[in-house]
Amino acid sequence: MKFKSTAIAHPNIAFVKYWGKRDENLRIPLNNSISMNLGNLETKTTVEFGNFNEDSVYINDNLIEGKEKERIIRAIDRFRNLKEEYKNLNVRVVSKNNFPTGAGIASSASGFAALITASASALNLNLSEKELSIYARLASGSACRSIPDGFTEWLMGTGNDDSYAISIAPKEHFKIYDLIILVKTDKKEVSSTEGMKKFNPYFYSRLAEIHENLENVRNAILTKNFKQLGIYTERDCISMHTVMMNSGLFYWEPETLKIIKEVRKLREDGKICYFTVDAGPNPHILTLQEYMEKIKEHFMNLGFDKILESLPGGRARVINDFH
Amino acid sequence: MKFKSTAIAHPNIAFVKYWGKRDENLRIPLNNSISMNLGNLETKTTVEFGNFNEDSVYINDNLIEGKEKERIIRAIDRFRNLKEEYKNLNVRVVSKNNFPTGAGIASSASGFAALITASASALNLNLSEKELSIYARLASGSACRSIPDGFTEWLMGTGNDDSYAISIAPKEHFKIYDLIILVKTDKKEVSSTEGMKKFNPYFYSRLAEIHENLENVRNAILTKNFKQLGIYTERDCISMHTVMMNSGLFYWEPETLKIIKEVRKLREDGKICYFTVDAGPNPHILTLQEYMEKIKEHFMNLGFDKILESLPGGRARVINDFH
Repeated sequence: MKFKSTAIAHPNIAFVKYWGKRDENLRIPLNNSISMNLGNLETKTTVEFGNFNEDSVYINDNLIEGKEKERIIRAIDRFRNLKEEYKNLNVRVVSKNNFPTGAGIASSASGFAALITASASALNLNLSEKELSIYARLASGSACRSIPDGFTEWLMGTGNDDSYAISIAPKEHFKIYDLIILVKTDKKEVSSTEGMKKFNPYFYSRLAEIHENLENVRNAILTKNFKQLGIYTERDCISMHTVMMNSGLFYWEPETLKIIKEVRKLREDGKICYFTVDAGPNPHILTLQEYMEKIKEHFMNLGFDKILESLPGGRARVINDFH
Repeated sequence: MKFKSTAIAHPNIAFVKYWGKRDENLRIPLNNSISMNLGNLETKTTVEFGNFNEDSVYINDNLIEGKEKERIIRAIDRFRNLKEEYKNLNVRVVSKNNFPTGAGIASSASGFAALITASASALNLNLSEKELSIYARLASGSACRSIPDGFTEWLMGTGNDDSYAISIAPKEHFKIYDLIILVKTDKKEVSSTEGMKKFNPYFYSRLAEIHENLENVRNAILTKNFKQLGIYTERDCISMHTVMMNSGLFYWEPETLKIIKEVRKLREDGKICYFTVDAGPNPHILTLQEYMEKIKEHFMNLGFDKILESLPGGRARVINDFH
């Protein structure tokens, strides 16, 4: 029996966002969401079960304690509680991101997707992609979207067993470039988990239009209609951030708004690109290969010189194995 | 009979905003709104009727033509059409603002309030404050709030005869300072009249919470509860800009957001102030005398050196008379 496994998962950028839950504990969302895995960014996580003195978690070479550790251990415990023989095993988790943590690039999505994938493999659980996505969702909602391949949709479902993500198109299907402009890489002041608890009436308007956004984004991906994808992605981004602002949450920085306005100008100027922003300050600029270099150059010239670049990414996967 | 009169009116800053109409032609709004006249800013307008060759309008020494002139002439025509003897008179309008035009400081409010007041006086119409407010509303919605004294509420009403503003407290009642930080003084790209036509589902949420905002702001003025006034004023500002952004209208500039964030920080630091932003980029910072100088200094140090300052202002009034 193996007790150690390493997995890789990618963060994802949502075209239609997840913001707000129907069930806090089970992390059942208010709406479906659609995202693209970011192939050039990844979390690599090794999980080892054994007779250690205690559970330990290292992220980017730092020993993790407190609430962050507890949340990770709770995810591990869902597996350890499955069999009597697992219950006395301690765990050692070693995880590394190749991108900055906590600045709205959804490191919790790739982190928990890699953790779940590696843990299930280490314990030889033979879970289906659907089951992995459910365990990832229980740990961190949007992590469920980093389990399947390429472009994925989180089906909100009605309860624990039918709320999970599926791939709606593989990563090779549509060559979209995501340029992530880092305007701030500190940890955000209010976590998504806390932020989305603050209900306000603007959620109703968001939900009133979100099915149109979902349908248009899904069809745009399937038919590779980049303009349609961009229009509805921007619309959904503004929707989420205005809901946030009405809860007093300003994730945007002045630079975020500057970049949003620049994207609108670039488009008027024939350089086809669209913005979206997750629960953080860093804008993602979606574009196609032909415009990519000019857009990068434009922002470099404006002094934004920390730009990450990614194409669509694959599923969360075990890359090593110690049977 | 006199044919010439000069009037002064102040722009106003809305604590609960006007955005969206039930009736386009009559300018009947979707909701009541509450504002404070800005006493240190004013438009001074002289209206003279006579046997001129044509109607002419000068604003800040510029001869006005095109749509801007047409809108002013339409307001004049509502008076000229009242009596047969007025119909053949041409008009000469000379108007000056002591503040920058078209940057969200509601120059149309003070401009039309002064125009209506001067025109009615020139033609010796003896209109009541309510009637003047109705004529001002027909010319430019929020202008009706610049007719009465001090702190005013526009009662949305049900039609032409009951949609007008009343004074809810005189200017001496509550010594609120408004610091207007000019981040951009160009004319805005999309006028309020055009912008508010774009209906979207976020209007519903706005209307769902606006009665709470109105009640709290009105009571806060009456009881001089500055904190309550500030909290609900900010809430309503975010609400209006939410509706705007979901129509694709970004009146905020990066500097606007920077100042919003600074106001929140100043407050944490014990300097009591609140922001609001009209349909333009320039934030208004509401504060009390004891914090005023420190707040001004704070923004001057950040490089924002164009700051207008105002206390509450009085009613629109005739200042000269040529009987």
